[in-house]
Amino acid sequence: MKALQLFEQIQRKGSFLCVGLDSDIGKLPKHLLQHEEALFTFNKAIIDATAACAVAYKPNLAFYEALGSSGWAQLEKTVQYIRQAYPELFIIADAKRGDIGNTSRFYAEAFFKTMDVDAVTLSPYMGSESVLPFLAYANKWAVILALTSNPSAHDFELTEEAGSGKKLYEKILEVSSDWGTIDNTMYVVGATQAAMLRSIRKSVPEHFLLIPGIGTQGGSLKEVARYGMNKHCGLLVNSSRAIIFADSSRTFATTAAQKAREIQQEMTQLLKSKHLI
Amino acid sequence: MKALQLFEQIQRKGSFLCVGLDSDIGKLPKHLLQHEEALFTFNKAIIDATAACAVAYKPNLAFYEALGSSGWAQLEKTVQYIRQAYPELFIIADAKRGDIGNTSRFYAEAFFKTMDVDAVTLSPYMGSESVLPFLAYANKWAVILALTSNPSAHDFELTEEAGSGKKLYEKILEVSSDWGTIDNTMYVVGATQAAMLRSIRKSVPEHFLLIPGIGTQGGSLKEVARYGMNKHCGLLVNSSRAIIFADSSRTFATTAAQKAREIQQEMTQLLKSKHLI
Repeated sequence: MKALQLFEQIQRKGSFLCVGLDSDIGKLPKHLLQHEEALFTFNKAIIDATAACAVAYKPNLAFYEALGSSGWAQLEKTVQYIRQAYPELFIIADAKRGDIGNTSRFYAEAFFKTMDVDAVTLSPYMGSESVLPFLAYANKWAVILALTSNPSAHDFELTEEAGSGKKLYEKILEVSSDWGTIDNTMYVVGATQAAMLRSIRKSVPEHFLLIPGIGTQGGSLKEVARYGMNKHCGLLVNSSRAIIFADSSRTFATTAAQKAREIQQEMTQLLKSKHLI
Repeated sequence: MKALQLFEQIQRKGSFLCVGLDSDIGKLPKHLLQHEEALFTFNKAIIDATAACAVAYKPNLAFYEALGSSGWAQLEKTVQYIRQAYPELFIIADAKRGDIGNTSRFYAEAFFKTMDVDAVTLSPYMGSESVLPFLAYANKWAVILALTSNPSAHDFELTEEAGSGKKLYEKILEVSSDWGTIDNTMYVVGATQAAMLRSIRKSVPEHFLLIPGIGTQGGSLKEVARYGMNKHCGLLVNSSRAIIFADSSRTFATTAAQKAREIQQEMTQLLKSKHLI
């Protein structure tokens, strides 16, 4: 999928919502735990309930790996299910991988060939080699960590470079935006840092940004749209726990659908106010 | 395992060799491919052949994930096999994970509870939250990326901080060495940067360092020992392809044993010359 196709999806649905499938087995509705593949059963119900309101899904690998190879198998089934039932949806493996070039090639194969997601989140620490093997795949995306939404993002991401005065995440934006194009590179920017989106948009005006941290982590959708939206929307805003764990009873899927619809409605208004739909 | 126990292993074996199980299915001896679990079959033979010469094994996750959940299952079997057959060995999952605190907790569970390795490599980009959940486990280790051995390590790791004049990797060493202790924290330092080990040893004189890049990536063992060895050895030196893929015929395990023994002999000499055995 190219950036323009993703924008068309956003226009069609009036939504730039990404649903985070952070499917913590400890938070699943109790009645699902009798299923052998409880994570997949949960994900399938969540996806069916929210697919009309979302353009993307983002399973976070940690919650699957915590169950070992069985967790990986359920992640694979989740991806296959989305591909089959909702082929228009964009799937991001939130894996935050990053290694030397030869090894990154195998990660790219894992996610783009074996599992067939559209995008993978990557840590840029080890430099271009961590990212380039992912960009070698047509119609696939690297989603590079820039400024994250967690408190300890301050430890290193905001380090100021001598001479240039640039923060580390700004240097990463500048350097890495030359590795690929706006059709294969996105950036992770935490919603809790909405005011910083203005300056980030100066470095990468055209790129899509993946914004986690709406809801539980405390960011405001309106602020994000205000500072981050560009003429092709350019935003995927992730919400996870506030949708998928809004209700832990038997009505969890209905409640998730409601929560996703509320966000979709707010997003539709924001897109309209920017004359994008 | 604590640092002193690891040193005792090193003394007992006259070796600080870590064998990298970068088990690329495309490089496996052809006769193994008929096995349903070719990666595990290969690993088991390599481990049996080299265990007398090594103190640690380091499977790199990318090579397993490239095969999907079947690859994960073979990695789990590999770890179980080492635990059962060679309980004294130290196992490092080379996974380079790193996420927000809540997510890192699940990665820690994946590797320390579900899989039960001794250590995991971690990317420090997102700060302390990426690492602290791993340090909450008794007798387990976080192996933090500092200065890696790949060419594009220069992209960001060597960024000089305004004011302090410190390189990013030096800042990471300084800040993160307060998160844990020398009994639960190691650092990845590329062997191709051996001369930099001298200054790294000033920041972290007591910590164990995991040194990749001997052999194929071009580092010299003698240089590494010269600049990096401390009074408890303080080094795990990784060799992967130069051992496991030295021979792709039916005699691959015998050849791997020879290669590991050559490295062990060189390491024994180095330990003796430093009066550590």
